[in-house]
Amino acid sequence: MSSAASLRIEKDLLGALEVPASAYYGIQTLRAVNNFRLSGVPLSHYPKLVTALAMVKQAAADANHELGHLAQAKHAAISEACARIIRGDFHEQFVVDMIQGGAGTSTNMNANEVIANIGLEAMGKQKGEYQYLHPNNDVNMAQSTNDAYPTAIRLGLLLGHDALLASLDSLIQAFAAKGEAFAHVLKMGRTQLQDAVPMTLGQEFHAFATTLGEDLNRLRSLAPELLTEVNLGGTAIGTGINADPRYQHLAVQRLATISGQPLVPAADLIEATSDMGAFVLFSGMLKRTAVKLSKICNDLRLLSSGPRTGINEINLPARQPGSSIMPGKVNPVIPEAVNMVAFEIMGNDLALTIAAEGGQLQLNVMEPLIAYKIFDSIRLLQRAMDMLREHCVVGITANEQRCRELVEHSIGLVTALNPYIGYENATRVARTALQTGRGVLELVREEGLLDEAMLADILRPENMIAPRLVPLKG
Amino acid sequence: MSSAASLRIEKDLLGALEVPASAYYGIQTLRAVNNFRLSGVPLSHYPKLVTALAMVKQAAADANHELGHLAQAKHAAISEACARIIRGDFHEQFVVDMIQGGAGTSTNMNANEVIANIGLEAMGKQKGEYQYLHPNNDVNMAQSTNDAYPTAIRLGLLLGHDALLASLDSLIQAFAAKGEAFAHVLKMGRTQLQDAVPMTLGQEFHAFATTLGEDLNRLRSLAPELLTEVNLGGTAIGTGINADPRYQHLAVQRLATISGQPLVPAADLIEATSDMGAFVLFSGMLKRTAVKLSKICNDLRLLSSGPRTGINEINLPARQPGSSIMPGKVNPVIPEAVNMVAFEIMGNDLALTIAAEGGQLQLNVMEPLIAYKIFDSIRLLQRAMDMLREHCVVGITANEQRCRELVEHSIGLVTALNPYIGYENATRVARTALQTGRGVLELVREEGLLDEAMLADILRPENMIAPRLVPLKG
Amino acid sequence: MSSAASLRIEKDLLGALEVPASAYYGIQTLRAVNNFRLSGVPLSHYPKLVTALAMVKQAAADANHELGHLAQAKHAAISEACARIIRGDFHEQFVVDMIQGGAGTSTNMNANEVIANIGLEAMGKQKGEYQYLHPNNDVNMAQSTNDAYPTAIRLGLLLGHDALLASLDSLIQAFAAKGEAFAHVLKMGRTQLQDAVPMTLGQEFHAFATTLGEDLNRLRSLAPELLTEVNLGGTAIGTGINADPRYQHLAVQRLATISGQPLVPAADLIEATSDMGAFVLFSGMLKRTAVKLSKICNDLRLLSSGPRTGINEINLPARQPGSSIMPGKVNPVIPEAVNMVAFEIMGNDLALTIAAEGGQLQLNVMEPLIAYKIFDSIRLLQRAMDMLREHCVVGITANEQRCRELVEHSIGLVTALNPYIGYENATRVARTALQTGRGVLELVREEGLLDEAMLADILRPENMIAPRLVPLKG
Amino acid sequence: MSSAASLRIEKDLLGALEVPASAYYGIQTLRAVNNFRLSGVPLSHYPKLVTALAMVKQAAADANHELGHLAQAKHAAISEACARIIRGDFHEQFVVDMIQGGAGTSTNMNANEVIANIGLEAMGKQKGEYQYLHPNNDVNMAQSTNDAYPTAIRLGLLLGHDALLASLDSLIQAFAAKGEAFAHVLKMGRTQLQDAVPMTLGQEFHAFATTLGEDLNRLRSLAPELLTEVNLGGTAIGTGINADPRYQHLAVQRLATISGQPLVPAADLIEATSDMGAFVLFSGMLKRTAVKLSKICNDLRLLSSGPRTGINEINLPARQPGSSIMPGKVNPVIPEAVNMVAFEIMGNDLALTIAAEGGQLQLNVMEPLIAYKIFDSIRLLQRAMDMLREHCVVGITANEQRCRELVEHSIGLVTALNPYIGYENATRVARTALQTGRGVLELVREEGLLDEAMLADILRPENMIAPRLVPLKG
Repeated sequence: MSSAASLRIEKDLLGALEVPASAYYGIQTLRAVNNFRLSGVPLSHYPKLVTALAMVKQAAADANHELGHLAQAKHAAISEACARIIRGDFHEQFVVDMIQGGAGTSTNMNANEVIANIGLEAMGKQKGEYQYLHPNNDVNMAQSTNDAYPTAIRLGLLLGHDALLASLDSLIQAFAAKGEAFAHVLKMGRTQLQDAVPMTLGQEFHAFATTLGEDLNRLRSLAPELLTEVNLGGTAIGTGINADPRYQHLAVQRLATISGQPLVPAADLIEATSDMGAFVLFSGMLKRTAVKLSKICNDLRLLSSGPRTGINEINLPARQPGSSIMPGKVNPVIPEAVNMVAFEIMGNDLALTIAAEGGQLQLNVMEPLIAYKIFDSIRLLQRAMDMLREHCVVGITANEQRCRELVEHSIGLVTALNPYIGYENATRVARTALQTGRGVLELVREEGLLDEAMLADILRPENMIAPRLVPLKG
Repeated sequence: MSSAASLRIEKDLLGALEVPASAYYGIQTLRAVNNFRLSGVPLSHYPKLVTALAMVKQAAADANHELGHLAQAKHAAISEACARIIRGDFHEQFVVDMIQGGAGTSTNMNANEVIANIGLEAMGKQKGEYQYLHPNNDVNMAQSTNDAYPTAIRLGLLLGHDALLASLDSLIQAFAAKGEAFAHVLKMGRTQLQDAVPMTLGQEFHAFATTLGEDLNRLRSLAPELLTEVNLGGTAIGTGINADPRYQHLAVQRLATISGQPLVPAADLIEATSDMGAFVLFSGMLKRTAVKLSKICNDLRLLSSGPRTGINEINLPARQPGSSIMPGKVNPVIPEAVNMVAFEIMGNDLALTIAAEGGQLQLNVMEPLIAYKIFDSIRLLQRAMDMLREHCVVGITANEQRCRELVEHSIGLVTALNPYIGYENATRVARTALQTGRGVLELVREEGLLDEAMLADILRPENMIAPRLVPLKG
Repeated sequence: MSSAASLRIEKDLLGALEVPASAYYGIQTLRAVNNFRLSGVPLSHYPKLVTALAMVKQAAADANHELGHLAQAKHAAISEACARIIRGDFHEQFVVDMIQGGAGTSTNMNANEVIANIGLEAMGKQKGEYQYLHPNNDVNMAQSTNDAYPTAIRLGLLLGHDALLASLDSLIQAFAAKGEAFAHVLKMGRTQLQDAVPMTLGQEFHAFATTLGEDLNRLRSLAPELLTEVNLGGTAIGTGINADPRYQHLAVQRLATISGQPLVPAADLIEATSDMGAFVLFSGMLKRTAVKLSKICNDLRLLSSGPRTGINEINLPARQPGSSIMPGKVNPVIPEAVNMVAFEIMGNDLALTIAAEGGQLQLNVMEPLIAYKIFDSIRLLQRAMDMLREHCVVGITANEQRCRELVEHSIGLVTALNPYIGYENATRVARTALQTGRGVLELVREEGLLDEAMLADILRPENMIAPRLVPLKG
Repeated sequence: MSSAASLRIEKDLLGALEVPASAYYGIQTLRAVNNFRLSGVPLSHYPKLVTALAMVKQAAADANHELGHLAQAKHAAISEACARIIRGDFHEQFVVDMIQGGAGTSTNMNANEVIANIGLEAMGKQKGEYQYLHPNNDVNMAQSTNDAYPTAIRLGLLLGHDALLASLDSLIQAFAAKGEAFAHVLKMGRTQLQDAVPMTLGQEFHAFATTLGEDLNRLRSLAPELLTEVNLGGTAIGTGINADPRYQHLAVQRLATISGQPLVPAADLIEATSDMGAFVLFSGMLKRTAVKLSKICNDLRLLSSGPRTGINEINLPARQPGSSIMPGKVNPVIPEAVNMVAFEIMGNDLALTIAAEGGQLQLNVMEPLIAYKIFDSIRLLQRAMDMLREHCVVGITANEQRCRELVEHSIGLVTALNPYIGYENATRVARTALQTGRGVLELVREEGLLDEAMLADILRPENMIAPRLVPLKG
């Protein structure tokens, strides 16, 4: 096959270029690929974004067709193309770098061109015969990048949201199950890394479930609050110039139906065209979840530290040999990786925030970075949660005896005795214990401060891990 | 007066120290002052936090008294002290640095000591005669720093919230008023700093009001969602050890009544003791508002750039001479200062986020930094919004003629003609205009592409700034 | 071919796994791939890191061989393998995710296993026959991940440094060339987006070259200062346990020779094992360059704004059609993309910094993220600089007439007249010009404040853009 | 005294205002105070900045006088005023908020006005009689905020640099002293929070000294490299418009002499006027030191965790009672506060970085925030280092017996035996020890793998904490 045969010529305002004959994308996509060799991460890495683009194009085509602006044959061809992309075909044709100048124009044109060429083939035409179905005039009809692209980002986030919630929910269940399994394991609580007062290991793991549960609820409610208002129909700057007055309503309605998402038109399209506030807050929420996961993983690493020279209250499942030089060493590699993901998400949030601040006048040209960072954070977060659950949490075991020994030897136990023996006695016993290395209970017994029955009652786990009526003095 | 007479001796576990006789704070506060000379910002800089601390102490005293643990006389003395602090007295006695180790213990003890000493005087005793009213045993009864301090932070934020919302609302009104005043001013919209399509200056300012209005609604709903659940009653680590089982319910109920805020007990006190998620998200929301303000101020600076070599569509009121070397120069100093405040808030959010990640096991010892940064962000944000409104927005005027001239000379006008003369003609006219420096309308007239009546109709402002039924071709 | 035939069984401490028969990596790499599906970015994306790993392995093998610990045949096999990797072969076998728990163990084992298996084939053995050449015992001999991995990261950065400098230097040359080409173009300088005083466009572009030139010098000196001290020989924690006392010196010397980099042994190996300071500062420097590039690109976007309703002093080359809806629109897509890269690098710096803070005791387990972010920042920075030069800077043209008109119409011109007509006259003229829309020169002539000869002299460009002896009054 | 008597009237371009009669600042300062009520932190909080401003004014006056532009009497009056400010007087008159719009104009005018009024009194005139000595015409002669202000910031940083280095050096000495004191204390090293191999506590503290020592060297060299090049003489935008051609050289030379700092003129004044690169990198270096301090403090908190349920290898000195509810609890409050300072410095670096990116065209108007953040970071860092040394490091003691017991019971000890008993035996022994809770040495003895003499030799501390010639097998 000659090289000429494997190429086709396409033209735009700037001139002509050779496009691979097999490519469904066209000249403008090619220009963007040549312009932006930056992150190395193409659009296709985020399938929900690609799917959302196709849904937006379908909705616009439906509206244009219903209003009489788009002929039946063209509408059928576009519909066939969009359907296939939504099914998952042709995603590899979405080749533009996620970092791109032009406020998303290259992404939008990548979608327009791929849809046009799939549609052309469906019409029995050759790729590139745009006189029959045009990327701009037909596929992009009544749209601007400035409304189609932000709409697709919002929709893409919504499309992936249930999977994110499901991963989080599974992780919560895993922690909650450990909370139940460890409900009977008495251990010392620690504040400021210093011995504090008793609690159960079950309470500790249950708190992990609780804190993530709050995020599950928050994420569940935030997504519709922030992302369902779309600016489709605003065209270039939100004035809707050159759009049919009936178009906005119809297009958004169609998009809601196609996607199954409760999308509504933005009330102030000028504002909606440039506003990135929804992404800033959503990313801030992802950052919050990342911070919580990182804190939890720090705790898991602390609690499993040792085995002999650390806390060693729990065991994490071994996932890989820990060291080539130190025999038998096993490391908490899974929580460590979660920490790193959390830091990455914090970095993503920063980049996104600065990009949001960088909007000017009627548009935020940094939107491609915003889209990239938020999709990346979600993907990382979801993968990290799945990894943490599957490769770590479900396999955690407790060292019950170690936990109990630490309680019994701890000086913090004196806090439980405080209401009964008084603050002064308690302080003295604590100091003596610390100086001599002896146990608090041993000293209390030796001094006869409490009898055995009383002591046994106070030290019953259920009495130490919850409020209890004791003689507080006024 | 001898130096001995102006000092009193106080003691704690670590020994004795001389406290100024006039000081209402005591030895533990003094230790903290000596330990932490860091930010130079004392607690008293945030009056709502001081007030909230007093309310927490009052609520605890009420509960303890009702439960029979705190004698009538002591309760009366504490109540008198708290009432005076809530009224605004004695705030200068809250001297501890906002950055402090110890997870807030120094703040809590500062409150305990000041209240005890005010109470002692109310009882007719001398400051320091703690045998009659003790900072720990009485004022801090049934509390731990670990529950009283986070509760006070949340309450302090709620107490200041209405003022923040009011400042934001006033700013929104100021932008909305300009939106109305400028509703008739036709101007060019710009995307990517390039001429785009026409809009009105009123639409532009109205969009500022809209975008901030979204934040007003969001902030209004987020505060109660995030901050009303308090961990008072959890004591050291959330197990409520050494607390009366009835205490939590009573104390929180009292605190709600005293403060007029809808506070409720946290469901999982272990989780609530160490969780900083509410602050992370609230700060993320403040950051979002800051980002929006910064973007708006960037726009104000762009739109007022010039007067001769910039955009010059609007005039900001002169607030101070701009230059000692350049006669007549006036600079956009107010929006610039808002930008800087926004960057500061972004930095605060970062510091807070890292601090939130730094929690370990049953406590987050970095909470003092979290409190500091969130109170600081709120104060800065509120002051910046008041400044922006009062010293800038209300005095903005439009250069109507300049706005109109820019529209008439713009090439972007061709977009409005596009549906009537076709994309090919439009592109050719645009190119010719750009190359020759001539006007689009002039060229269209010259070529006879549209007659005058049609042109006049298309170019009527109301027709250019909204969708319009034109013959889109399928 | 049966499925069994396409797999081989490997074993480690945790059990056995099936490895693809064609894979040069082994079981530990496979475990890591299964554990860490996070960023989707494998080691192979950073060829200099892969090359550096091979050089470290070669150096260790050379030292071990010379000390008599590694047999001739094994040394030869390892040498063959390392040479091929250094040549660029087998990079696709470096499959571990850049984000990984285990402080780099997976990266180190990926290298050990690939080298062992290439070496085994060179010895005429089958992949997996580790009894003849063992990933740990032979390839990793006398090493720990904790010394080999940080050494490879430093070396990898050094290996890529010249290319980074070359890209920066080319960009500087491009700006400097424009500085010369535009040396005669008089224009208004702007401070605070307000008209200031005259300068040349050449001065403006020359300043871009200067400011980047400072970074070139700084980057050139920082890399050797920060990165040439390596901890190879420290083994697990820097005590060099189980290493031959002569090994450190020999291995580092060999590594310097092999790589051609001036590597030296770290003086305090305990410190060097966990210290990430070099990366923090190097990333801080990359961030500085990114910030400068972003500022420059903001300027390019401002200066090219328009064409009719902005500043329009320069033209950026058109790289792609700007809008499907707005005919003739061309956008500054290249500088915009550079902005986004800069924001990404700022985010990377943050993630890296938090990771650096997260080190504990004798190791920083977050090092994989640190490596990832710094290599990513460098790649992005280099690509963005190449893009900016090639697709933008070299094609920039000046609108000389526009520049001159803006000077002549500006009010800032009055500053040049200030020393001759006095501050009071200057201020009055400026005010009148602003209020009436008339020109400063016109008014000065009308008032007869200066004669034509004097005016011509003052307004000669060379007299306005540099200090000049004029009668300053005391 | 009537209110009229306590006020004076001053005028500027915008009109007249009443200034307190006692105030040495004037109308422009007052406008700035009214405009910018933001951070609440006045210039006077940073004495080195105030001093540097006075030195700049002195140098300019000297140059102007020498060039014949400033009369003798005025020069004498300015000199008297500057001398007194440099001595530390009148600092309370520097009242402008550190966050201010106008790119530092308010700071510069605050200095100009205070100096003029002190000078006027020295001349026997009244404050405000500017006809005799004018803030702009005389004090600010040949200057612009845009050159005087950045010059003062750089100089201010240099003036405070030795004190920063001294604090760092003292801290290093304190760590080094502990390194010597603990040189004989054998303990387990830990990687990934898991038991690794033996080391000494002295090595651990020595590494703290080493890592900070690197920062001492780096800070010592960076300050002159980054901060000595000043743009004084560039006036408004770096073209030096309206300045005497001889002025720049003279003024900078004088400033170097007055300050004792090796200041030199910037080579490219256009670039130097807007470039913030020096601050970005210097802040990046401060951030690095902060990160190291935070890591060290995390280690101190881990090593002192317990006393019974943590690592407990060292004791930090008690600085304040740890808990009102938990008797005897003492917390690591000093390291915790250092952590928070580090996070604050990271936040400062971010705000500064964003501000640096926000420069536009010939000026960076965000410079006041940059100055604020960098001075704040330095002050915090210095105070935190002093606090850490004085209140913590010097009082740290070692729990030698605990350290030794942990070594003896550790499984990591097996790594030391590895070369003698082989990897397979080592792994088996490690696994058995872990499963049975028995000691490694006990098992080795029981199995007769090594005789007592050999064991004693291997386990001698000096043999375990450094490389040693053992039979590595090829």
